Amino acid sequence: MSRPRIGITLGDPGGVGPEIVAKALAAPGALPGADYVLFAEEGDVRREASRLGLTLGPPLSFRAPQGARPSGRRGAPDKDNGLASFLAFEAAVAAARAGEIRALATGPVSKTSWALAGVPWRGHTEYLAASYPDAIMTFWSESLTVALLSHHLPLREALARVTRPGLLRFLGALRRGVAAVSDVPREFLVAGLNPHAGEDGILGREEADEIAPAIRDARAAGMPIAGPFPPDVVFRSALGHPEKIVVALYHDQGLIPFKLAAFATGVNATLGMPFVRTSPDHGTAFDIAGDDRADPGSMIEAIRMAARSALGPL
Amino acid sequence: MSRPRIGITLGDPGGVGPEIVAKALAAPGALPGADYVLFAEEGDVRREASRLGLTLGPPLSFRAPQGARPSGRRGAPDKDNGLASFLAFEAAVAAARAGEIRALATGPVSKTSWALAGVPWRGHTEYLAASYPDAIMTFWSESLTVALLSHHLPLREALARVTRPGLLRFLGALRRGVAAVSDVPREFLVAGLNPHAGEDGILGREEADEIAPAIRDARAAGMPIAGPFPPDVVFRSALGHPEKIVVALYHDQGLIPFKLAAFATGVNATLGMPFVRTSPDHGTAFDIAGDDRADPGSMIEAIRMAARSALGPL
Repeated sequence: MSRPRIGITLGDPGGVGPEIVAKALAAPGALPGADYVLFAEEGDVRREASRLGLTLGPPLSFRAPQGARPSGRRGAPDKDNGLASFLAFEAAVAAARAGEIRALATGPVSKTSWALAGVPWRGHTEYLAASYPDAIMTFWSESLTVALLSHHLPLREALARVTRPGLLRFLGALRRGVAAVSDVPREFLVAGLNPHAGEDGILGREEADEIAPAIRDARAAGMPIAGPFPPDVVFRSALGHPEKIVVALYHDQGLIPFKLAAFATGVNATLGMPFVRTSPDHGTAFDIAGDDRADPGSMIEAIRMAARSALGPL
Repeated sequence: MSRPRIGITLGDPGGVGPEIVAKALAAPGALPGADYVLFAEEGDVRREASRLGLTLGPPLSFRAPQGARPSGRRGAPDKDNGLASFLAFEAAVAAARAGEIRALATGPVSKTSWALAGVPWRGHTEYLAASYPDAIMTFWSESLTVALLSHHLPLREALARVTRPGLLRFLGALRRGVAAVSDVPREFLVAGLNPHAGEDGILGREEADEIAPAIRDARAAGMPIAGPFPPDVVFRSALGHPEKIVVALYHDQGLIPFKLAAFATGVNATLGMPFVRTSPDHGTAFDIAGDDRADPGSMIEAIRMAARSALGPL
């Protein structure tokens, strides 16, 4: 049986992406055995490894996207780098869609570089959401794990998504998605929507009318789940328990605490699609691009999680 | 000129309140010179100090509220303790309203004890909000300082409060309230309402239509203020800069990060009233009541902040 193929993109060529990918591929024992497919020019990747004095480890193949070359410029947003990083990502997603790779780990792209290149999506997430409207954003770290019921919506619209059937469908998809990337038992803690989780209806009805019934339904279906909990308590109580996944009901409810507790150390995983896509929870870090100072830890974990989804427990 | 009088309540007699108040009053040099008025039976306070082997320091006077005595029970919610702690608080607020004390520091009460006693308010904040609808909840710690545009409202109703005139009026009251308790220059950072602060209107219009204009108006009036910032970034960037006060637009936007960054170490200050009311940012801690293990740090800081509002810079 051939080993599963895991796709990797470098992200913006002017940022730290190429460096952290090279460091991840060169770190002995960091990555599980798999066939890694880099959506990049082989020469570009080998030159980056050579610049850093690294020997690339696992079996690699390369698929250079056609139609664009990086500019060679580092440390700032750049139109050519934007187009090159977009086309590499698009090629990788097409390969995942076609089943040629089983999962995808993406290096950090620059929203500004993409905009300079005229790319109509703001980033990876928006591109994926256009094809997979049920895609689920999850954030993983040593200290906290968070899943978002909705992501890039005005808050007023996000509130309207908090319905019993919508939440129940989300919880089912989340449970399946988490099982694909995680080999430890997980417990799901659902945040409330209103202050103090509605305080028995005095501070809002959504908990009693929508959220609690959806949680009951999910629990009846065998999901290890509890809530709704007061939002200002549940993240604090899950802190240091990454096996507890907090279900946040809107973007900032989950990302305010995640960025506070796990800034730039975690992994962002998009679940609920036919393939898993992961990325480090940090940006291009243009300020240190080319300095050999970028920490590959978050990129390594992103690749490991992508591989785990294809390989099963590591 | 006589020294200003600062009121203090013990909170729930069955919790750690009496212990942390006694420790605060006994700690040499912890409190500024003022006349402290305890809304409690003198005998109860002296017995608690004696139990702990403490000598109470500053000049004290006592005003025992009529109509209720603590039950003597510790470590659990209790009807008599609930009534006693409510009547003491009510007497202290009446004294503040009448100008007999200039500021008030309150020990932690039990919501359950109050409910057992039939008190129709859930806690200090609700009681004060009934008399002072423009009361402002603020949270202060070494790592983060937060002010809330609205507090105990369903999230849907809280969104409706985000209007240019409402926010501008709030900012003016906040600026005056902060000047009363703080002697260092403060900068105000306003969070957005929507993900990414609306991302140029794509993810919501409130930033462009309401929040940014209110900030411009406040800045034009001389307030050191900036924003709106992406909610998932502004708390992270203010972390470790307690001189920056983050203006949160709804309860959980401010309290999720505050409780994560400063759990039980901060001070809660109610501003925007004719007097300042402060309290420690922790509860009754029934589990350690009577054990001589309660840390008075947060209570000391609450009393100091109350005194500062009456005395000016310490």
